[in-house]
Order: sequence, then C-alpha cells, then structure tokens
Amino acid sequence: MTSFFHGIEQIRYEGPESRSEFAFRYYNPEEPVLGKTMAEHLRFAVAYWHSFAWPGGDPFGGQTFERPWFGETMALARAKADAAFELFTILGAPFYCFHDADVRPEGATFAESLRNLEEITDYLGQKQEASGVKLLWGTANMFSHRRWMAGAATNPDPDVYAYAAASVKANMDATQRLGGANYVLWGGREGYETLLNTDLRAERAHAGRFLQQVVEYKHKIGFKGAILIEPKPQEPTKHQYDYDVATVYGFLKDFGLEGEVKVNIEQGHAILAGHSFEHEIATASALGIFGSIDMNRNDYQSGWDTDQFPNNHAEMALAFYEILRAGGYTTGGTNFDAKLRRQSLDAGDLVLAHAGAMDTCARALKSAAALLESGELEAARAERYAGWQTPAAKAMLSGGLEAAAARVTAEGLEPQPRSGRQERLENLWNRYV
Amino acid sequence: MTSFFHGIEQIRYEGPESRSEFAFRYYNPEEPVLGKTMAEHLRFAVAYWHSFAWPGGDPFGGQTFERPWFGETMALARAKADAAFELFTILGAPFYCFHDADVRPEGATFAESLRNLEEITDYLGQKQEASGVKLLWGTANMFSHRRWMAGAATNPDPDVYAYAAASVKANMDATQRLGGANYVLWGGREGYETLLNTDLRAERAHAGRFLQQVVEYKHKIGFKGAILIEPKPQEPTKHQYDYDVATVYGFLKDFGLEGEVKVNIEQGHAILAGHSFEHEIATASALGIFGSIDMNRNDYQSGWDTDQFPNNHAEMALAFYEILRAGGYTTGGTNFDAKLRRQSLDAGDLVLAHAGAMDTCARALKSAAALLESGELEAARAERYAGWQTPAAKAMLSGGLEAAAARVTAEGLEPQPRSGRQERLENLWNRYV
Amino acid sequence: MTSFFHGIEQIRYEGPESRSEFAFRYYNPEEPVLGKTMAEHLRFAVAYWHSFAWPGGDPFGGQTFERPWFGETMALARAKADAAFELFTILGAPFYCFHDADVRPEGATFAESLRNLEEITDYLGQKQEASGVKLLWGTANMFSHRRWMAGAATNPDPDVYAYAAASVKANMDATQRLGGANYVLWGGREGYETLLNTDLRAERAHAGRFLQQVVEYKHKIGFKGAILIEPKPQEPTKHQYDYDVATVYGFLKDFGLEGEVKVNIEQGHAILAGHSFEHEIATASALGIFGSIDMNRNDYQSGWDTDQFPNNHAEMALAFYEILRAGGYTTGGTNFDAKLRRQSLDAGDLVLAHAGAMDTCARALKSAAALLESGELEAARAERYAGWQTPAAKAMLSGGLEAAAARVTAEGLEPQPRSGRQERLENLWNRYV
Amino acid sequence: MTSFFHGIEQIRYEGPESRSEFAFRYYNPEEPVLGKTMAEHLRFAVAYWHSFAWPGGDPFGGQTFERPWFGETMALARAKADAAFELFTILGAPFYCFHDADVRPEGATFAESLRNLEEITDYLGQKQEASGVKLLWGTANMFSHRRWMAGAATNPDPDVYAYAAASVKANMDATQRLGGANYVLWGGREGYETLLNTDLRAERAHAGRFLQQVVEYKHKIGFKGAILIEPKPQEPTKHQYDYDVATVYGFLKDFGLEGEVKVNIEQGHAILAGHSFEHEIATASALGIFGSIDMNRNDYQSGWDTDQFPNNHAEMALAFYEILRAGGYTTGGTNFDAKLRRQSLDAGDLVLAHAGAMDTCARALKSAAALLESGELEAARAERYAGWQTPAAKAMLSGGLEAAAARVTAEGLEPQPRSGRQERLENLWNRYV
Repeated sequence: MTSFFHGIEQIRYEGPESRSEFAFRYYNPEEPVLGKTMAEHLRFAVAYWHSFAWPGGDPFGGQTFERPWFGETMALARAKADAAFELFTILGAPFYCFHDADVRPEGATFAESLRNLEEITDYLGQKQEASGVKLLWGTANMFSHRRWMAGAATNPDPDVYAYAAASVKANMDATQRLGGANYVLWGGREGYETLLNTDLRAERAHAGRFLQQVVEYKHKIGFKGAILIEPKPQEPTKHQYDYDVATVYGFLKDFGLEGEVKVNIEQGHAILAGHSFEHEIATASALGIFGSIDMNRNDYQSGWDTDQFPNNHAEMALAFYEILRAGGYTTGGTNFDAKLRRQSLDAGDLVLAHAGAMDTCARALKSAAALLESGELEAARAERYAGWQTPAAKAMLSGGLEAAAARVTAEGLEPQPRSGRQERLENLWNRYV
Repeated sequence: MTSFFHGIEQIRYEGPESRSEFAFRYYNPEEPVLGKTMAEHLRFAVAYWHSFAWPGGDPFGGQTFERPWFGETMALARAKADAAFELFTILGAPFYCFHDADVRPEGATFAESLRNLEEITDYLGQKQEASGVKLLWGTANMFSHRRWMAGAATNPDPDVYAYAAASVKANMDATQRLGGANYVLWGGREGYETLLNTDLRAERAHAGRFLQQVVEYKHKIGFKGAILIEPKPQEPTKHQYDYDVATVYGFLKDFGLEGEVKVNIEQGHAILAGHSFEHEIATASALGIFGSIDMNRNDYQSGWDTDQFPNNHAEMALAFYEILRAGGYTTGGTNFDAKLRRQSLDAGDLVLAHAGAMDTCARALKSAAALLESGELEAARAERYAGWQTPAAKAMLSGGLEAAAARVTAEGLEPQPRSGRQERLENLWNRYV
Repeated sequence: MTSFFHGIEQIRYEGPESRSEFAFRYYNPEEPVLGKTMAEHLRFAVAYWHSFAWPGGDPFGGQTFERPWFGETMALARAKADAAFELFTILGAPFYCFHDADVRPEGATFAESLRNLEEITDYLGQKQEASGVKLLWGTANMFSHRRWMAGAATNPDPDVYAYAAASVKANMDATQRLGGANYVLWGGREGYETLLNTDLRAERAHAGRFLQQVVEYKHKIGFKGAILIEPKPQEPTKHQYDYDVATVYGFLKDFGLEGEVKVNIEQGHAILAGHSFEHEIATASALGIFGSIDMNRNDYQSGWDTDQFPNNHAEMALAFYEILRAGGYTTGGTNFDAKLRRQSLDAGDLVLAHAGAMDTCARALKSAAALLESGELEAARAERYAGWQTPAAKAMLSGGLEAAAARVTAEGLEPQPRSGRQERLENLWNRYV
Repeated sequence: MTSFFHGIEQIRYEGPESRSEFAFRYYNPEEPVLGKTMAEHLRFAVAYWHSFAWPGGDPFGGQTFERPWFGETMALARAKADAAFELFTILGAPFYCFHDADVRPEGATFAESLRNLEEITDYLGQKQEASGVKLLWGTANMFSHRRWMAGAATNPDPDVYAYAAASVKANMDATQRLGGANYVLWGGREGYETLLNTDLRAERAHAGRFLQQVVEYKHKIGFKGAILIEPKPQEPTKHQYDYDVATVYGFLKDFGLEGEVKVNIEQGHAILAGHSFEHEIATASALGIFGSIDMNRNDYQSGWDTDQFPNNHAEMALAFYEILRAGGYTTGGTNFDAKLRRQSLDAGDLVLAHAGAMDTCARALKSAAALLESGELEAARAERYAGWQTPAAKAMLSGGLEAAAARVTAEGLEPQPRSGRQERLENLWNRYV
C-alpha cells in the first residue's frame, strides 16, 4: 500500500442500513439483477484522466491537488500506476480507462513519447495481471498539447493529421496489447473557433477519412473491441463537430461507418447539447449505435462541463432504464470521467467520490430493473401505440400519401386526442425509485 | 386600400441619408450586387402566420392585436387576404408564405376545411395574379389544433397519421396550384414530452416513411419546387425530432432522402439548438441540403423562440456571407417568420417592422457581397489550408493509418502551430460591415 | 359529486408498499415529523390558475382541455368552484390559491368585474366553510388582459397604475374576507421588452411606491397575513424587475420594506434566473425574507417556465432541508403552481398529478427532516467554520483592514487549504434520501 | 523596442476608408464628440492579466503562447512591464489595469510577495512617468492560488480572511502610489461550490464587513479613486455572491455602502447572469452605482466567460448609449479584459485585437452620441411617459392605494393600450449605427 491511500481498506457491501462512510449500501457485485450480476451489468471503470492526472485547476486557478506522483518522469508514471491500481482495487472496480497523456510523460519527440507509452503499457499489463482489473478503453489525448490547438484530423496543417494518425495507431496498439474492450475517440479539438477561418467541408472530409482509416486499421490488427466516438457540443472549441448522438449518426452514415462505430455518451455532454442523458442513450439505441457511458453529471446551473460524480439516483435511473431497454452493455461500461471538486483534496475524498457514485448507480440500476421487470411501463407504452398493430395502419405505411389521405374522407376520420398520462407514468416511476 | 393600411404608401428606396421613417435606406430592388439584382438575391417573403393570423398572445396573456379580419369565416379570410396583399405591395415583397390554418377557417370536418382551403386558394391565385406577388412556400399547420397534440406523422394514433397525410396532400395541391417555389414541413409536434410514454424507434420510422410518401407524391403531381424541412430543437415539445441541420441530415440519409429534401433554416431555431445562424447555413451548404431561410432573430436572453424582426446588420452579414458562398438561393428566399412585439399594435408598426428588416438584410447582403468580391477572406482561408494541396497530403487521405503514421518518424515531424488569426479576420470583417 | 371527478375517491395514505394508483405512499397528514404533523409542515395548496383556469394552450397550439366549467359566466364560475373544492377535498389539500381572473368572469367594466369578484368571494367563503379548506393566498392577475401589456404599476400610462391599485385593493379585500394567510404580487408585466422605450428609473420608482401603498393598505385594513413578492427573471417580458430573491431584497431595502414584504419562491423561476431552488430558499432565509413556495419544476432542457409537477424527491429534499433549517413556514405553504402537461386530458390525470407531487414532497420532507435531526450535516458545517468562533477571528471583524493584515506578517500566516469534502457530504446526503 | 513587437509601429487614425491593417478607422483620439474628445470619452485601458500573464490555456489544453517574459522572476517581471508599456504606447491606450499576480512573481512568503510588489510598483511608476500611461485600476488576485480555493473574505478559515486583508491593503497601497483612478474587487472565489458545506449567512456577513474595512482604509489613506465591485454570476464557483448589478446593490444597501462603492460591469458577466450588457449599465445608472466597464464579449453559444475582444459595433452602441445617458465615465473607463483566442499566437494578433476593439468602440460611441444628440429616441421615451407629468398622476404616488383605486370608478377608467413602437425605435436606432 502506498502512503497515499494508507489506512483505507477495500470498500465492501454492507447494505442500505450501514452507517459506515467507507461501505457500499447498494452495490453488491455478485447480487443478481435481471439474470446477470450487478458487476456484469454495471461494468464500472475509473478514469485515469481526472482521478490521477488532473491537478485541480480551472480557468481562474491553478493546481490544488498535491499528489506524490505528479511530474513528468517514467518513475512517477509508474508511481501513478501503482496508486491508480490501488484505487481500482479499493473500489473493486473491474475496469479502467486512459489517455496516453495520462499514463506516460510526453517525450521531446514523437519517438520518445512512443517509447514511454510502450514501456508504461508493459507496466500496466503487469498491473492488470496482478489485480485482475481490465481496460475498458484506451484513447489518444489529441487536445491538450499546443500542436493540437487547431484540431487533430481536422487540422489545417496536414502534418498534424499525420501526427494524429501516429498517435491513434500507437494508442490502438497499446489498447490491443492490454486487451482493451473498446477504443475511444473524443474530438476535443475537432471543431472550430470561428467560421471566418474554417473550411467546414474540407475538415469534415478529413475527419471522415480519418475515421475510416481507424476502422481499417482495427480490422487489420484484429482488434475485437468497439470503436467509439464520444459526442460533445461546444467545449473546448466554439463548435465541436461530434455535437451529439444524432449528429454523429449522420456523420457515420455519410462515411459508411454506421455499422462499425458506436458512441460513448457522457451525461454532461448530453446536457450541454440540450438533451437529457436518457435521450441520448435512447437515441443511440434507436439508431443502433449505443456503445458505452461516461457517467458524470454536469451542474444544471453551469454552462460548461463540470464533470461531477453522479449523486442523484432518481435521475440516473432514467438512464439505466434506457440502457436496460437497449439490452445492456456489450463491450461498453459505466465509466466515471468525473473530477473531484478542486477543494476535495484528500485521498479519502477520491475514494468516497467513486464509492458514492458506484452506489448511486447500483441503486439506480436496481430501480430501473425492477420497473422493467414489472412490465408496467412497457405495457403502458405498448397500449399507447397499439393502433399501429392493425393491418390498416401497416398498409398506410406501405402505401402512398394519397391512399392514407383517402382514409380521412372515406372513413370520416376526426381523431380524438387521448391522454398521454405523463404524470401518472411519473408516479409509476416513483414507485420504483 | 383597406382602412387598415389607410394612408401608408408604398415604401421606396431613398438612400442611406433619408430621414423618412417610411423608406428604404439600403434595399434598392434593382441595384446590382454580384451580378444579380438585390431583389433576385434576397427574394423577400412575408409570413401570413405571424403578420396576419397571430393575435398577440403569449403564455401569460391573450390577444392584444385588434385586426378587422380576425374571425373564422370565409368572408374574413378574404378580407385578411386583401390586407395581406396590400402589405406585400406596400413593401414590394415579391413572395409570401402560408399555413393552411392562416388562410382559411377551420371547418367542422376535414371535408369542410378542404373546401375552405380550395376556395381561398382560388382567391389567393387571383390576388397573386393581380399583384405579381408569388408564393415562396405553403405548408400545413399540424401543431395548433388539439388533434395534433401528440404529433402528426409521429402520433401514436394511426388515424392522426392519415389526417396528416390528407393535410399535407391538400396543402401540396394548393401550393402546386399557386405555383409555390417550395413546400415546407415544420414538425411542430413531431417530438415528445416524456420518454416514458414514447416509442422513439416507431416514431422515427413513421416520420421517415411519411417524408418518403411526401416526396413520392411531389413527383407524382410534378411539383417542381423543393421539399424543405425546418429544423427546431425544443419548442413546443420537450424534444423535437428535427433538432438541427446535422440531425435532419442523418434522418434524410437514413431514409434515402438526402438528394430530395433540403432545409429551411430559422435563426431563432439555430440559436435554441446551441448554434449560430451562420453555422447552420454553412453546415447545410457543406452537406448539400441548403434550401431557404426564416430570417427572424431570437432574444439572446430568452430561452424560447421570440421570433423578432432582425435588426443587427453586422450579425446578419455573417449569415448572408454563408448564403453567398453557398451560391445563393435557388428556390429559397428570405422569409420573415417574425412576430411584431405584442405591444406594437398599429398598422404602421406592421409595415415598419418588415421594412426595417428588409433594409437590414439589404445592408448585410451588400457588406457580405463586398467582402466576398474582395476575395480577402477567402484568400486567408485558402492560405490556411494550403498544405492540403500537396501530393503528400492527398496521398495521406487515400492511404491508410499506418502510412500516415509512418511519416511522423520518417520525416521527424513536430508540427508547429500557426496563428489562426481570428481577431485579424474579425477586423477585416469589420472593414466591410 | 360533479360528473367531472365521478368515481374518484379521496386519496388516503396506504404506505410505501401500496400498489394503488390513487393512494399516498408517503404523505401521511397526521404523522409527526420534527415535532409537527406532516400536514402542518407541508401546508399544501392547490392553484386555481393552472388546475382550473388554464385551457392547455401553448404558443403553438390552443386549448386541449375540455372542462365543463370553461366559459365566462357567473354560473360557470360557481361550477368551477364546485369542481375545485372537490379536488381539494379528494386530495386532502388544506389550502388553495387564486387570481381574481381565475375565479370570476371579467366584466365589461371594472365595476362589473368587482361585483363578480365580490359575489364569487361569498361563494368561495361558503365553500371554505363547508370543506374546511383555507386560502393560502389571493392575488390579482395583472398580466393577461391587454390593458396590462406594458405593465401594471410600472405602466407608462398612469391610468393603468390606478387600475392596478384598484385591482390589488379589490383582491386584498377579498383575501382579507376569506381569511387568506398571505397576499401575493407577481409582477408578470413589471419589466420591459426593450430598453429603447423604457424609463428604468421612473418604473422602479413607481413600483416601489406602489408596494409601499400596498403595505400601508394592509395595515389600514388590519390584514394579518404576509405580503409576498414572487420573483421571476425573464418571462413573459424580456426583463422582469423582480428577477430573483437577491434583486427583490435590494428593491425592498431601497423602499424601506425589507421588514414588511417577503418572497414566494418558485422552483422554475429560480432555474430561469440561473439558481438552484435551494439557493433561492437559503438566500431568502439568510436575508430574513423567506415566505412561501411554489413547488413546480422546470424541465432542465427547456428555456422557459414549464411549470411541471415535481417528481424528483432526491432533488426536492434539498429544498425542504433549507426550509426546515429556516424554521419552516410561518404563513407560507407548499403551493403547486403546476400545469398538467397539455396532453394529460383526464380528470384522473389532474388528481394523480397533484397526489404524486404531494407524495414526492412528503418523501423529500421526511428525508430532509431525518438528516437535520441526525445533526450530521450541521456538525460538518459547524466544524468547517469553527475557526470563526475564536476571539482573534471575531476581533478581526470588529477591527480594521490594517489590523487584520498585520496578523499575516506578525504570525507568519500561510493558510493551508483544507478539503471541502463535497463528495463525502453528497454521500451523507444520499444516506437520507 | 523589444524584439516581441519588433516592426510594429504606433497605430494611427487613418479614417474609415483606410485599407491598412495597422490603423484606426474610427478611433481618432482628439476628435470632439458631444463636447469631449473621443479619448476623454472612452478612456481605454489594457488589462495586464489576459494580454501579458495568460498563457493560452483552457480546461482541456495548456499553454499555447510563447512569450519571452513568461516565468516567475523579477527580471522577467520587468521584461513583461517593458513589453506591456510598449503595447500601451503602440495602441495609444491612456490606461492599464493589473492584478498583483500579473505584475510580480509570487514569493515564498507573503512578505516576499509584498517586497516583489513594492519593487515592481516602483518600476511601473517609472514606466508610467516615461510613457504618460496611467493606471485605471489595481486589484488583488485572490482566486488563482490554492490558498483562495474556498474564498478570500468568505473563506471558512479566518486566516485566509487575514491574508485577503493583507493582500488588498498591499494592492490599495500600490494603486494609491501609482495614482490609480479606481480600486477593483472581483470576488472570484467569493461564492460556493455546494450549499451542503456553506454557511451563507456567515459568509455574507464577512464579505460585508470586509468591504466596509476596505472603504474605511480608503478614507484613511486618502485614496481619491472609486472602489468598484465587479459582478459575476457563476464562474468559477457554482454560485458567485456578486451575481449581478442588482444583487450587488442589495448587498451594498445592507452594509451601508451604496454611497461608497460602485460597479465595474463586464459584458460577458452580464450575459452569464441572463442580462444584456446595456441592461446592467442602465440598472447601475438608475441605482446610482455605475463605475466602469470591462468591454469584452462572450460567445452567445458558449456557457462560460469567453472574454473575447468586442467586434460588433451595432451591439456595442447600445452599451455606449447607456453610458452616455448616464453622463459618461467619471473615474471609470473602457477596459479590455479580453483574451486573444488561444490560437492567435503572434505579436501582431495581440496588437490588432486591441486596435480592432478600440475602433469598434469608437464607432459605437459615435453612433450612440449622434443618436443622443439628435434627441429622437429621448423624445419618444419622454412622450411615452408624458402622462406621469400631470398633477393627478403625481398625486397618485403621494397618496394611498385607496385614492388611486377610487379614480377607476370615479372616472370610469378603462385604459386603452398604446403601441410600444419597438420595431420603429429599432429602425430609428439603425439610422445611427
């Protein structure tokens, strides 16, 4: 045990009545829910990025966290990995996620950065082996370094495109070696600051071709995981191309990739795009591109990505209900891409933020599963659309506008509205959460 | 002349120095701009809806306007048409737009509503003939009557789908008869209030099939105009399916309609979706689906569609620049789907609101045209992306990820950022507006 | 029993395990919580306005509800009152609230409107007597009729100020006669649409003097209830003067009314102003002007007042915690100024929307009370500020800047940050909700 | 001339037709406008903070700017001052502003930081002397260092309050020595992240007492400038206490400071608070607390402070009109607290961003002045409120509610709405911009 988490033991399930701070009250990994264990359903992952690499800064203030592993050397990178896997183990989290920039020091050249990545990949492999923790996804950080300031695949400079290709290749290779279940692309600088200097058409074409190349490379190396795009609307650039799930879908269709690429949906990104989290999940499911989840909330009164640990089970249950309706995760999981508040300085804060979030998810999952199992909501939904099961209704869809129109006068149709029963269904919902 | 506009003469161009309230200072219809007249560029249209049918209500208050044509009889519908064409003539607006519900009284049955529509279509045809004013687009109001409360094509009740088919058919027929340049669909109730009672997948399938039927019918009747979808994100329903241009594009691709249907973009709807107006135009242009414009602004401090007449030429110039870059309108035009403020009670307010908006558009167009003609901004843009014209850059796109990646180490690439020059370009912009 | 609620019996407490739709699972009126009954704590009120007078319209559609009492006659006003008191009784709601425009038909003149109000006041008094239901507050609707379009007390026309005075006087008299616990002023048109035509200074002076006159009249007639202002930021006017609690406080201070007037806080209005609901309650409490609550939520994805029934107990518990910390209501209560969704057509919807909301409030209250009783959160808060209890700290406040500054060098102060423990406290919170 | 601005000459007025990038087209310092020179009206200031101390980072990326003066030594601090005064001179900006943290390296102790500040104050004094540039305001950065993470005057730790007192005293002393025209307080961490750990009442009391101490100290040292609070709503903390102008006014009233302290209003902060910039200026003017301006815009599609250089003269004219109506600045000025976009790397970008902003302000000022001089808008406003000049109207305000009410029936008042003429006034506006 490093000194950082000294004295903190593994979090265990103690049931809803437990008064212990360091305990799960709802997350009971082996407990069966709808035919799987809770662990199998939830597939929790911890993000290296916010929990081990972020120093606590914001646009108006610098570092608040003092972590013994901060610094840009390989020795500190290993110390960071040691601490990270300790946290994973304390939490009993089966997965983790990383950007290259989280796990290895930036080198003076690409070659040096690559060597650092390969070396730490070996070390992470050993840690995975020793702990049983697996990699949910790897990804390349193509937004922090100043070389990316005008985009990666969408950069006006083709050399940056090349650099992006090299970075993604290196990270796909590392992810493949570590047995990652997915590979993620978040286009943090794929967007624009001003239309005045932007060639939208060219940037879209480059982004599309880049993604095709990624998919081709995946098949070439035999990577079995999913390729996931993470939508986000308007931060850090004024306009981000992967705005939301529906936008990504159109982009995938345009480049023939809708069967190859799925989405990693983040609650906060959904909110910034003007959607509820459950909307984005339901939309991805309806479009056949649901992949994985970043389960971190935004503050509803703040207009940017606050990346907070989730804490409202009643709200989260709406998301888990849609995930369960979609059949649950396949390669995806529940990743906390969440930041401690920058005033939460202590090791205990880091542990409890994750533990509380896991517990809240577990509680939400159980509520959602119970409602789904009851069939009450699905019965109401089916009843509302029952009219569409008639032959006449189906014929209307296969026929033309005139035929459909003709029914109105032929049958003297004057359709009478029926109650949508929203408040009743919300009450029903509240019987389960 | 009706008593309503009594004493108001046709608005004429008097030049920038005119002090007259009832004059154009910038809109000079026959003045050439980039090889066309201003009238040909701008193709102004007045919306029947807000200017003749809206009573001035809002969610907290009722009617403020007292118009002699208010009421639900055919005689009043003709009086309304008389007044409307008077306004079109006073303004010298070459086009107008309507919903069925704006121009004819609702009947007790569909058949009666249809007869009313057919009768007023005849009358509008005569008015068009007499005035030379043309129809930019027609559309069916499938959102105001309570039968549509849960959607039109996406209604859980298939009878409402039939009613929608009959309504669109009737309006397409009327638009065709009146020589309309486009037919518009705004899905004002195509969305949901709560996911709890909604079958997203079914509603999308119905919406897609409906649009295919509309396109099939267009070809059947030989309608030469464009079919336009008007995106809007979250009003009146919590989530509207045609959220924004990118969302509509994905929907069109899904149903094989991207070559058949274009978009009618409204400034206020762009804002509600988290975009600038010029973004939506540029996006539609890049995707090949730019059609037409509703040129009415939202208040940036209000979270709903305020539908105000535009009044900031510097901001509007950004939109017209994108329209000009896209090659200008083909079938589309500049429609003011704008409401008088509900305190603007007088006939003079109605005239001057439109005249001021037309003038502001004209001023914006001239600024945008001058900048485009200068080539200064386009030269800066081309220079920024010049690297992509090299054979090596093009080869990178046609090759694979590995080949692109290999350049980094082979050539020792460490790309150096170059200034995006945003503020300089904004200064350049300001030399023209 | 009228035919409208035919077959719906009084809602009764059946406990959390009840599967009945028409039952309370948490609201057990006589159950003691922190030394009072739940009924005494919550003081539920039903708003006449949305539940009996609103026809279901929105800016894009008209009436959806068909209520047998709709219409502008005294007979229908009595029928409406009969139905309203039936609902109050079905729900066991101890209070109701009204605007004059909700309960009486508008007359052709002020005198006729006043007679209508006086007549219906008698009738309401009889209904109160018969049912035991009481009036939480009355208010004048000074925003719906076109005469108010440019404001009531802040109208540019002094005759409208007079009309507002007459309206408020009439409603204060009615409220006094009915034993109302409070009198409310929501300045629905006290604001502006454009600064271009507005004299901010004059309008503020008139609003301040008007409120002084209201307070003077209250004392003159011996009204014992509280005068409450209801803050709201930007709907229906672009800018509403009573923006939020802090703004109202400054206004009250300016006119010497901070000891006379309190606030009625609505969740949706807090959200529109960029605040959480609990923030506004806590602020009002800290400023000594907390009065009452409109407990209706907004949709976080919509930019206007959606006035929905509350349904997230975990979120509402934050509000009730602040209410309990403030000592609970004195004259105030928990009013549902909430609209059925316009698709919720049935009598059952109206009943269940209220019943579900009451239940959610009750659940939230119990959670909040349990946490407050535990003292756990208050202990953490006190510990965080404990340093301010020392004599040195207190001396710093009574002394001057230099003395405080001098401590830094004298004592070599280099303050070390301590964790704010936010996530831990959120976990603690979640043990109670 | 340092190498940084090498080759860039002083920007001079060349008139609207100039095609030169490095020229003013509107800002002609000595040109008379409404009886003063443009320089006297505008009182431009450059902010050290964003233009010399900010490295170009955002929450997702680090430093992009490479400035030869970056680093934490006194030698670099002097090099930074040299470059800063070069820019001031190139621009002909008569004023600058600073935070202590912008101009001096942080010391290992407060004493060392103070010595650094005193030393650089001497140096800045020499630079002022040599260049003729003056200090618009100084301020203490009490938000960047981790010691301030939980607030300065509102910190739970009284030692931080002492540190804040020492910091403000040091900066007031420096500002006094440098002849600063104002002293500013922006409460960047005076707010909260969560109500769960916050004592609102105590924090407000401490903030109020602190401000009183600041005012007392101002009088003690004979500082003749104004004390200014800069309102901002919700960044960086979830809730900032100095939310907007109206909130600050209530706070000042509470602590008896409304005659002592004014506001420094920033466009971006107004926007984040849900207001237009001109609203905040007009409100401050109506409340008698208008002080100064931070003239930097936000992106309307971004939910945080983007701090961009202003570039829309038509919009800015609305702000300058309110400033002129308020009588113009006394001690205040037009400060650009604006950031270059982080992709704008070059010295030329830094110069032209300021020059373009100055030009846009000058253009806006001239438009606003011409309209004010014409009297057209003020005549329309006066006419709208003319009714309030009658004795009867005035009597209504001095009398009571009953007397006002009695007029309605006595005179049979049924006030008829009159047009607010918003669009006409917007057209009038557009004749001047």
